[in-house]
Amino acid sequence: MQLLAEREQELRERYGISFRITGIASRRLGWIADANGLKVEKDVGRPPSAASSQHHENSDVRSWLASARADVLFEATSLNIETGQPAIDHIRAALEHGAHAITANKGPIVHAYRQLRDLAAARGKRFLFESTVMDGVPIFSLFDQLPAIHLQGFHGILNSTTNVILSEMEQGLSFDEALKKAQALGVAETDASHDIDGWDAAVKTAALVNVLMDYPIRLNEIAREGIRELTTGAVRNGRRDGWPFKLVCRAKRVGDRVEASVAPEKVLGTSPMGKISGTSSYIYFETDIFPGLSITEENPGLHATAYGMLADFIRVTRDDSP
Amino acid sequence: MQLLAEREQELRERYGISFRITGIASRRLGWIADANGLKVEKDVGRPPSAASSQHHENSDVRSWLASARADVLFEATSLNIETGQPAIDHIRAALEHGAHAITANKGPIVHAYRQLRDLAAARGKRFLFESTVMDGVPIFSLFDQLPAIHLQGFHGILNSTTNVILSEMEQGLSFDEALKKAQALGVAETDASHDIDGWDAAVKTAALVNVLMDYPIRLNEIAREGIRELTTGAVRNGRRDGWPFKLVCRAKRVGDRVEASVAPEKVLGTSPMGKISGTSSYIYFETDIFPGLSITEENPGLHATAYGMLADFIRVTRDDSP
Repeated sequence: MQLLAEREQELRERYGISFRITGIASRRLGWIADANGLKVEKDVGRPPSAASSQHHENSDVRSWLASARADVLFEATSLNIETGQPAIDHIRAALEHGAHAITANKGPIVHAYRQLRDLAAARGKRFLFESTVMDGVPIFSLFDQLPAIHLQGFHGILNSTTNVILSEMEQGLSFDEALKKAQALGVAETDASHDIDGWDAAVKTAALVNVLMDYPIRLNEIAREGIRELTTGAVRNGRRDGWPFKLVCRAKRVGDRVEASVAPEKVLGTSPMGKISGTSSYIYFETDIFPGLSITEENPGLHATAYGMLADFIRVTRDDSP
Repeated sequence: MQLLAEREQELRERYGISFRITGIASRRLGWIADANGLKVEKDVGRPPSAASSQHHENSDVRSWLASARADVLFEATSLNIETGQPAIDHIRAALEHGAHAITANKGPIVHAYRQLRDLAAARGKRFLFESTVMDGVPIFSLFDQLPAIHLQGFHGILNSTTNVILSEMEQGLSFDEALKKAQALGVAETDASHDIDGWDAAVKTAALVNVLMDYPIRLNEIAREGIRELTTGAVRNGRRDGWPFKLVCRAKRVGDRVEASVAPEKVLGTSPMGKISGTSSYIYFETDIFPGLSITEENPGLHATAYGMLADFIRVTRDDSP
């Protein structure tokens, strides 16, 4: 919301987009809506001054969307790995209400991609999620621009927390010390088991397989191994020998199936994956036209993920323009 | 045209695109048009069997477009560095006729980008040129998907011929032997001075600056140095010392100007540019949101450039769909 506020003038002048924030829902504020617009302070912490706004005491997303007269929903709840909820319900409600749905939550793509994609198409709305993989780097949009291409597989490094931890362990820190440092840097969350055990990387892999390879893979079909078992000694020796450990995501077509995995691998230190350090990320796509097409995101800025949602917002307004 | 024929079924079934080739113009065939469709053999060498087709003996592109009732022009004349002609005239005629214009020729982007872009916008048609830089990798389209982003600069390796020649010289071949080998591989043209003297790289740099940085740079503003002066000894020593020579394209904003150059540089062998070999290419973009966003195209397939035009074709038909 901060980036949206910062770029308000540019959106208006360069893209002809003007907008009002007519609804906010958060754990702290509850469900607030005012179709005339809420006054949102630049620092999002403060509650909106909304004398006339309606508070929806229950979490009835449908009545909230109606009160807000929402045209676009930004969905940013946190990931529920097992079910993808409540994000799936929020997005479904938005599309049925007649709003575009933009999410930064990978759950809906892993658990309900085809359903939500088809619902969006049926309603003439967009379901976009560019910020879910590699921050806001337009990976999904890139493939919109690669029509009639056949994606055979991919590999890459998509989880920052484990990458930072491995880099720190190469310097001699224990796993626990490295984790604390990643947390201090703001890269790892308080409960980082989600990253460490490879879930985040597996969810991103599933999202890419579901969307870009058009194969509905389930999370439990992805062979998954985290970095918890790696000792500092093994990690240091790997780097010293020129074959550092990286948490690598892989997917490939095998017959009419797609096989995918997430696991620590020793990669050649001078290879593109071997050189991905800190919060950078990398993906290599194998296609029929381009045997190797790779994208590296080095040191993403603070706004990279928010930017993904902003770019999705501009995309949906392009569709709506006359 | 071969790729178009190969993918005809997929275009129809997956994208709902059916097409007829209603005009062909080449040095050998002259200007042929038949609005009912020309019969084009899969191997494009043979002349179309077109009893009813009209031959335009003079090169009047307007009457040819009218006879063909063209909806889309594929422009693939060879580059005229000084003027960008006759491609500019062809594209202007197509847009004025009411057809989309797709070109693989960099000349129009260097010499007439703003004019043709504005003409296309005024006519509600598209002017697309994705195959001009990095074969068909969607570089220009990627930035369509990076709205409201600010490109500060870029660097990369964009010319295959010089890259192949430098790789061969590292193995000990003389410049002339390396050039002959690149020609035998089909990478370099008979007259390769265009590549060797850095013109191709400079033209690509100008195209990227004009389009992506929205700065109308002239070709003679780009400091340009080719690889002709490099000796086999220097090239071998560079690689041996871990700092191989590469022909590097650079551009950066300096105040309200853009400075750009093409020159051989010694780059760190283990850096991304140092690892670009043979016909691979690489570009690194500096943006406000993503400080470093890079794309590598490894060993492009035979159809990579043709694919760029095919993808542009699918893009323009998306615009036309109801």
